[in-house]
Amino acid sequence: MSITTPKGFVAAGLAAGIKASGALDLALVATDDGVAVPTAATFTSNLAAAAPVQVSRSHLAATGGRATAVLVSSGNANAATGDRGRADAAAMCALAADGLGVPAEEVLVCSTGLIGIPLPMGPITDGIPRLVAARAGGDAAGADAAAGILTTDSGRKEVLVGYPGFTVAGMAKGAGMLAPNMATMLAFLTTDAAVEPGPLADILRSAVADSFNSMSVDGCTSTNDTVVLMASGRAGPGDPTLVADAVAEACADLARQMAADAEGADTMFQVHVTGARTDAEAHRAARKVADSLLVKCSINGRDPYWGRVASELGSAGVDFDMDRLTIAYGGTTVCRGGVEVPYDAGAVAAHMAGSMVVIECGLGLADGTGVVLGVELGYGYIDENRTTS
Amino acid sequence: MSITTPKGFVAAGLAAGIKASGALDLALVATDDGVAVPTAATFTSNLAAAAPVQVSRSHLAATGGRATAVLVSSGNANAATGDRGRADAAAMCALAADGLGVPAEEVLVCSTGLIGIPLPMGPITDGIPRLVAARAGGDAAGADAAAGILTTDSGRKEVLVGYPGFTVAGMAKGAGMLAPNMATMLAFLTTDAAVEPGPLADILRSAVADSFNSMSVDGCTSTNDTVVLMASGRAGPGDPTLVADAVAEACADLARQMAADAEGADTMFQVHVTGARTDAEAHRAARKVADSLLVKCSINGRDPYWGRVASELGSAGVDFDMDRLTIAYGGTTVCRGGVEVPYDAGAVAAHMAGSMVVIECGLGLADGTGVVLGVELGYGYIDENRTTS
Repeated sequence: MSITTPKGFVAAGLAAGIKASGALDLALVATDDGVAVPTAATFTSNLAAAAPVQVSRSHLAATGGRATAVLVSSGNANAATGDRGRADAAAMCALAADGLGVPAEEVLVCSTGLIGIPLPMGPITDGIPRLVAARAGGDAAGADAAAGILTTDSGRKEVLVGYPGFTVAGMAKGAGMLAPNMATMLAFLTTDAAVEPGPLADILRSAVADSFNSMSVDGCTSTNDTVVLMASGRAGPGDPTLVADAVAEACADLARQMAADAEGADTMFQVHVTGARTDAEAHRAARKVADSLLVKCSINGRDPYWGRVASELGSAGVDFDMDRLTIAYGGTTVCRGGVEVPYDAGAVAAHMAGSMVVIECGLGLADGTGVVLGVELGYGYIDENRTTS
Repeated sequence: MSITTPKGFVAAGLAAGIKASGALDLALVATDDGVAVPTAATFTSNLAAAAPVQVSRSHLAATGGRATAVLVSSGNANAATGDRGRADAAAMCALAADGLGVPAEEVLVCSTGLIGIPLPMGPITDGIPRLVAARAGGDAAGADAAAGILTTDSGRKEVLVGYPGFTVAGMAKGAGMLAPNMATMLAFLTTDAAVEPGPLADILRSAVADSFNSMSVDGCTSTNDTVVLMASGRAGPGDPTLVADAVAEACADLARQMAADAEGADTMFQVHVTGARTDAEAHRAARKVADSLLVKCSINGRDPYWGRVASELGSAGVDFDMDRLTIAYGGTTVCRGGVEVPYDAGAVAAHMAGSMVVIECGLGLADGTGVVLGVELGYGYIDENRTTS
């Protein structure tokens, strides 16, 4: 299985020479007939958005939500590169569009890697025509594409979700701002269900909110984060609800793969908040806990120090009443009414020894719920991030 | 010099047995004649505020901004302790007030230490009368008080600022949420200048905003943070502007001592933001950079990776235009107009090898300025915070 499994897509990946290591560093996903299809994308909210984000946004706006291909380069983010960066990103699209015989606006572009250094356009200019020429169906081409988008990832991240009548496939790299230089999370999804651009954008927005945007590695928002979903329509009209379910499932799976691949982080944790005033407040509170350095350190130390969780909830900027608070680790309640209760320490220790710790926080105010996935903080994060070399 | 240097104050500190180590764990600062004086305080904004914060807030409101004494216990935060915690905090005030012969409302109380465990009231009840009886002027008593408020601090933090005609003294513990269990920053200031409660509160609020609230260790807001300023008036009316300057100077000095004492953190950094739309936006942007795990790791690694600084500024929620951005390390400009410029790498490396790195960020939009003090993120933070034991 690969990004080319849904009918109507081809892919390619190759080593153009952006990465000194010689690893694959260019990737392409395109329709197999060179026709633009409904395409949705979500981009970073960072106001320092990288050049490829700026260019892709304008291309997608120009086509009204259609694209023929997505071009990806890895090893250099083309971020903080000013006018030159924007020109380079546009040139990349134009080159790929030439090869595909389509307008440049039908090509989206993403880059990931170091910030602040102009792209090495020599190898990229040489590589793109070869990349376009190499596009093909089948798992080998899909695997090359999935490898070509990686930076410090330990391996490819791919997913396939099959539903009666249609499939959704995806590939991704990164885990938020995980690695030293490679600052981005990228995800690309294809489906052969037929969905128009408007509903497709709604489906993607919702799936991203519940997956990639419900994950905390270190609370940093990259300059390049991008998720793209292309719908070839080859499988015929899809039930929008089922397509939404399938896309959500694919995004959630890729998000878990990213969190699991966090360098130096073997343990993940889920923060479930219930009883908040609204779902938005629950999500905000869960994110505050998942972002907390102190909570992340506690997970690293397998320490059920629920007082820190309470302290983060109290400073999350949401409605909160300490006297109504309940906290449980892996189903074992440790705090009720804002105070510690007797609990089975052995059960909590056994739960925290696993690779996924579940912290349930009941605010006791209303019905709002939210879940955010977090990653422990240990030596590995510091080793990866202290220098760019 | 000590907290008792300004005329009109006595102090005491002793080991009551809250801390298993046998270290000093109770402290008192009081007026020498048992008369309540104008007193201002700022408390944590955390909605999970600890019992002593709740009690001290209500006492200060009841007296209209006057107090005779501040009682401090260390080793247990009396936070997340519910009704029992509130009763314990009130009982501590009542006991001290008995000894001093004043109403309980004239005593403020602070605690610092582990969250979620009821106070050991036996040793505290035994200790408070002895503490009150031991109160005295002079540096030895002041030093005992400064020691009695500490938790994982490496030593006492004291300051004295002398101005013509009056003095301001202070003592403090902690550095934000620095240490594993000891989650709090506390600071106590005395002055012999005569200032009424209203202006005194304004003076303290402003000084705290520019010092303790402009410091980032890990972005966590404790349940117990408290700063108290008492004004005996023994030196006669003080020029409000001069008193404000002296209090600001004392708070800034204590904040620097806290940051310098961050366990596992030898290097601090200042983030100066200029050219923001407003001072508030500049402060918010500076805090986003100072709170950033990635920036903190870069400081640990002595790596002038300005792209991360730009990325944090772009996601700080303030007005931002990448094309106007300038960034300098220790006066050496590395980024102008949002792109890297040639710079003297040796000069930057020499600057970053020091113990205080200065990052200047010019947003180029208007005249807003703000400064926030940050601390590097290294192994030491994780060692201190991964478990409570």
